[in-house]
Amino acid sequence: MERTLPYRWDAETNTLWLIDQRALPQKEEWIPVRSAREAARAIKEMVVRGAPAIGVTAAYGMVLAHLAGEDLDEAEKLLAASRPTAVNLFYALEKMRPHKGDLEASLKQAREIWREVEETELAISKNGARVLKGQVLTHCNTGPIATGGYGTAIGAIVEAYRQGRISHVWVDETRPYLQGARLTAWELQKAGVPATLITDNMAAHFMKLGEVDQVIVGVDRMAMNGDFANKIGTYGLAVLAHYHGVSFYPALPLSSVDLSLESGQDIPIEERSAEEVTSIKGVPIAPAGFPARHPAFDVTPHHLITGIVTEKGVFYPPFDEALRNALAQN
Amino acid sequence: MERTLPYRWDAETNTLWLIDQRALPQKEEWIPVRSAREAARAIKEMVVRGAPAIGVTAAYGMVLAHLAGEDLDEAEKLLAASRPTAVNLFYALEKMRPHKGDLEASLKQAREIWREVEETELAISKNGARVLKGQVLTHCNTGPIATGGYGTAIGAIVEAYRQGRISHVWVDETRPYLQGARLTAWELQKAGVPATLITDNMAAHFMKLGEVDQVIVGVDRMAMNGDFANKIGTYGLAVLAHYHGVSFYPALPLSSVDLSLESGQDIPIEERSAEEVTSIKGVPIAPAGFPARHPAFDVTPHHLITGIVTEKGVFYPPFDEALRNALAQN
Repeated sequence: MERTLPYRWDAETNTLWLIDQRALPQKEEWIPVRSAREAARAIKEMVVRGAPAIGVTAAYGMVLAHLAGEDLDEAEKLLAASRPTAVNLFYALEKMRPHKGDLEASLKQAREIWREVEETELAISKNGARVLKGQVLTHCNTGPIATGGYGTAIGAIVEAYRQGRISHVWVDETRPYLQGARLTAWELQKAGVPATLITDNMAAHFMKLGEVDQVIVGVDRMAMNGDFANKIGTYGLAVLAHYHGVSFYPALPLSSVDLSLESGQDIPIEERSAEEVTSIKGVPIAPAGFPARHPAFDVTPHHLITGIVTEKGVFYPPFDEALRNALAQN
Repeated sequence: MERTLPYRWDAETNTLWLIDQRALPQKEEWIPVRSAREAARAIKEMVVRGAPAIGVTAAYGMVLAHLAGEDLDEAEKLLAASRPTAVNLFYALEKMRPHKGDLEASLKQAREIWREVEETELAISKNGARVLKGQVLTHCNTGPIATGGYGTAIGAIVEAYRQGRISHVWVDETRPYLQGARLTAWELQKAGVPATLITDNMAAHFMKLGEVDQVIVGVDRMAMNGDFANKIGTYGLAVLAHYHGVSFYPALPLSSVDLSLESGQDIPIEERSAEEVTSIKGVPIAPAGFPARHPAFDVTPHHLITGIVTEKGVFYPPFDEALRNALAQN
């Protein structure tokens, strides 16, 4: 089973190679990044995406700043501004800060940030695999390409397949940005996991036919009571799973739990460009100028969740207590 | 408020003009049809679509057969084979059969079939408008362009807006074929009804926010107990509406009720080309050769329905009794 990472560090030429995720799955193009400025641009233009992968890219961006002789404070500012809402980005830059001016220490720290991502996701994958059996449905993209590790929901799926626990995966295409069709399908194909693409509006039909045993998804941000924001369409899936008696699991590193949020009510929903709805890959699908909405995320309330998969284990209700205990040990 | 019909009959040149629905909404191209052979090809190639519109087109196809001097039995066979599952097509050809060889009578019958569609849908629209209020969500395309009349669900929506009962419509894009984005959006724009396009997976989010008061959809085929088949995604919407306490109405002519079906369990689900899922308007969105499923319809059980909108009124549970009574009077 192949695991394609979003980056490769070439120590001989001091180059960070990024796979251009905008061209996937039709083309696998690797882009060389040789400075913090180039790393920041790659993050901004979505060559690389997914919060953990962005964090690691930013860390290597600081390493490249040393190698390219860039102003280090300027480099950090550029990287911090590349994607203003990604918490992993700030976390990575914060960890890199004490090593400014020391190339060796910077490189060691960047490697350490990457290693942490891998270790955490390996644990999430193993914990998640235990709750999966039969046929699984997933939404959006949560695999190695988005994280640099093993993935969260996809990590659990690949591990469950390796263990012979699951036989087949339903992949939601995930409109409007099609992360499921473009990236999850590609990653599962590489990993050799039998999978079938469906449009988002088919999930209910296959649940009714008894062909979905669990739903597992990633998490953008989780509140202390277990409510969580994730890619638009996640909440609807949770309602449908609930109605059909299908188990529903979010999978996440504990670093995605926001201690300052009591509940999901306070999570702001980012509204993105309407054009991503009225056109697909640049091809218009609606009348010119037709109004569209594009909430990028929705919020799923904790009472629709069967269990929360983390690197510290799978938590069951009451979630607030479980999350508080797990975070206290961190 | 403009109503765009899928065809125009030009009595001076004996030509049936069809709007090419494959090019909508980007281009409004009218195609001249001057024989039954050309009419059959237009139906087959989906220049014209929607069961009632296909029926009227086939009726005029028989008129054209007389005018073009085609073999009339051959013409009927060609038209009957153009779309094998459309019940309105057979119904129209059956009505045209007694008039074979008589151009005047054929033309009169074709006009009558068209008039019946308009009359039925005007009644559906008026009945449907009474149950709508506030913000309405609809799926797929059920408007004049699909029927030649006023439409079913869209007829009710336009009438409700005309009466000041509703303020805004949510239009599901309706993957994979995008009838909502391409056709419903276009029709509502022409009719001057304020509407917003969303991806299918956003419906739950807006229901949760309290921004959807009713869902109204069309019907492909209804069983005697009220279960009905309609465009894929309809069933999921019904479950989501039920969960959020949102009223859910199918709108249909009574001719779409299949007396031979006790329940929806017996409705076969047509599986269409996987390529419509793995690509959009010819642009691939998934890895080459990736497996996909494409059930074109799903079945919504009657217990998720608030009321059934027909030309004879709005029926409430128990639906089997109401449908049996209405059909007995037909």
